[in-house]
Amino acid sequence: METAGKVIKCKAAVAWEAGKPLSIEEVEVAPPQAMEVRVKILYTALCHTDVYFWEAKGQTPVFPRILGHEAGGIVESVGEGVTELAPGDHVLPVFTGECKDCAHCKSEESNLCDLLRINVDRGVMIGDGQSRFTIGGKPIFHFVGTSTFSEYTVIHVGCLAKINPEAPLDKVCVLSCGISTGLGATLNVAKPKKGSTVAIFGLGAVGLAAMEGAKMAGASRIIGVDLNPAKYEQAKKFGCTDFVNPKDHTKPVQEVLVEMTNGGVDRAVECTGHVDAMVSAFECVHDGWGVAVLVGVPHKEAVFKTHPMNFLNERTLKGTFFGNYKPRTDLPEVVEMYMRKELDVEKFITHSVPFSQINTAFDLMLKGEGLRCVMRMDE
Amino acid sequence: METAGKVIKCKAAVAWEAGKPLSIEEVEVAPPQAMEVRVKILYTALCHTDVYFWEAKGQTPVFPRILGHEAGGIVESVGEGVTELAPGDHVLPVFTGECKDCAHCKSEESNLCDLLRINVDRGVMIGDGQSRFTIGGKPIFHFVGTSTFSEYTVIHVGCLAKINPEAPLDKVCVLSCGISTGLGATLNVAKPKKGSTVAIFGLGAVGLAAMEGAKMAGASRIIGVDLNPAKYEQAKKFGCTDFVNPKDHTKPVQEVLVEMTNGGVDRAVECTGHVDAMVSAFECVHDGWGVAVLVGVPHKEAVFKTHPMNFLNERTLKGTFFGNYKPRTDLPEVVEMYMRKELDVEKFITHSVPFSQINTAFDLMLKGEGLRCVMRMDE
Repeated sequence: METAGKVIKCKAAVAWEAGKPLSIEEVEVAPPQAMEVRVKILYTALCHTDVYFWEAKGQTPVFPRILGHEAGGIVESVGEGVTELAPGDHVLPVFTGECKDCAHCKSEESNLCDLLRINVDRGVMIGDGQSRFTIGGKPIFHFVGTSTFSEYTVIHVGCLAKINPEAPLDKVCVLSCGISTGLGATLNVAKPKKGSTVAIFGLGAVGLAAMEGAKMAGASRIIGVDLNPAKYEQAKKFGCTDFVNPKDHTKPVQEVLVEMTNGGVDRAVECTGHVDAMVSAFECVHDGWGVAVLVGVPHKEAVFKTHPMNFLNERTLKGTFFGNYKPRTDLPEVVEMYMRKELDVEKFITHSVPFSQINTAFDLMLKGEGLRCVMRMDE
Repeated sequence: METAGKVIKCKAAVAWEAGKPLSIEEVEVAPPQAMEVRVKILYTALCHTDVYFWEAKGQTPVFPRILGHEAGGIVESVGEGVTELAPGDHVLPVFTGECKDCAHCKSEESNLCDLLRINVDRGVMIGDGQSRFTIGGKPIFHFVGTSTFSEYTVIHVGCLAKINPEAPLDKVCVLSCGISTGLGATLNVAKPKKGSTVAIFGLGAVGLAAMEGAKMAGASRIIGVDLNPAKYEQAKKFGCTDFVNPKDHTKPVQEVLVEMTNGGVDRAVECTGHVDAMVSAFECVHDGWGVAVLVGVPHKEAVFKTHPMNFLNERTLKGTFFGNYKPRTDLPEVVEMYMRKELDVEKFITHSVPFSQINTAFDLMLKGEGLRCVMRMDE
């Protein structure tokens, strides 16, 4: 492309400081360096993690910063050493990566790449420790290696999944983070059997994706657990057969679930990140075969506590990160699940706004309205 | 047999009260009732659990009682409804059972039979709530459904594994509890891959059996962890390549193991029952793929505590009971592993005494000498 090797000037939403509305600015995006790719973002969605690091409560503040990590785009140009991607390829950026060379990437079981594992405090490229974004020569920091709230962004090749070019990017962009996280937690880690009973804690987008996974796996009873009773109606579209609000009970919710299910659920997936819900999710699984999977990210000071006999009675507890999907290896196949109509992503997309109205997307999420708001970069 | 249907008078070691030497008495053993089997015990070994309930510290005292649960014998007669066993069959009694009819028995994953799961407080048969042992008409209580410290005992058919009659009962008797518990924890639950690194916490008989499992699975590095440095020499016979004594280090032992192994062990098996060791066993496994398995039974007040991020970084924690072996279905195959010389049980048998010297066996265990002491019932 004619822009290859040159600085591109384009629009980006810059977070100048914690909690203040983003402002659309003209930024300079430097060409990709070794093992990097410059991507034209066509659609980006807003995820809770963006809001979390925008609020920066209890986090290292890294500002000014271009947030955004759930997106779909097209390769504009590639840096030295990049052989797997070429201009024109359709890609999903991912907040964590796959170098294909470390012990984790070589393990069949792990997706926690040593080189490109998520790093929320780093605001620069790993190759040279510099930012590729500037405004008037002043660097603007990256976010989790993706910074998709920009018409163009620079991403390490290991954080880009090359997908089927037929896949509509305005839909499959939401597969680059939350939906795959929940879906994979169930399909790859909890692995419920056909006809089994599954409890899902937290019915946000990730929890509903975990629920969709349970439905796809053939679970016959799917119990949604959430403090907000309004979530039940929406959850029914994702296969929810029963709803439990812990606030409606005086006894711990795990006891309620054990009683409802004659001894416990077969699988539980925890998507809230609250440690009490983690304990409940573990203690509500059936002895002998129950498996609980933790997805939600806890506070730094959280402590998971349980009586060890709960393990000895043959319960399993495991955690997952990005649904155990290896970004480059596995994400293209998740897109194919959508293409084969095995996976419905449309129902996760409840809103769509022009990129220029990105603060509306933040408002919707702060109010808890909808699941995913997709932003159209060309508007 | 001519004794079928009649009361048998024979020798048994009776624990009259907590912590007092057992005394060999003549007891009356009633005929087996429905679904029960009367077994002539030929060899019985002493396990820590016998000593634990003999000491009855913090336990419900159930006395007078005939202890014993690790044994081998021959069916003398069977009660009504017993079709799977006949007089003359060689059997291993098991402290837990398999009814083959409950949800657990029907699950491929669980061996926690609803009907016959271990019950340490019950001193009677489940069929009629009565004891089959009497002395001068006064009932003597059973122990975990087996009470093998008697020349004859009555056992529910679901707690008897029918084994190859060619198998030497003086050797395979030790497979009826501890050795299978440790072996199965590794082979059935931890499932280390060939060439992997495994840590074993606690190098008693169960831990050494878990270690033997790791060696059989092809682990290339096997790290024994024990507070007693004298355990290392013996552990080498079971494949121990490295030994760590937590007392030799100021930092937590999990940190020592993580440093020794460049990020953590692939699998850990905890056989002490101490909750601190459980936490260490979990926290020493590698992120991305590490699995820790709990075998040792904790105190009633124990609390397992860890930071939930240790799970989210893709570690797995699970517990096992009797090595996940289903007693009737799976134990005969463990005996076959011995018959095919894939499993060496002789090295677990460090002592052998006549049954009349059963208190010597207790003394050896209380002093921590040896692994298993087999008692010969006919002496």
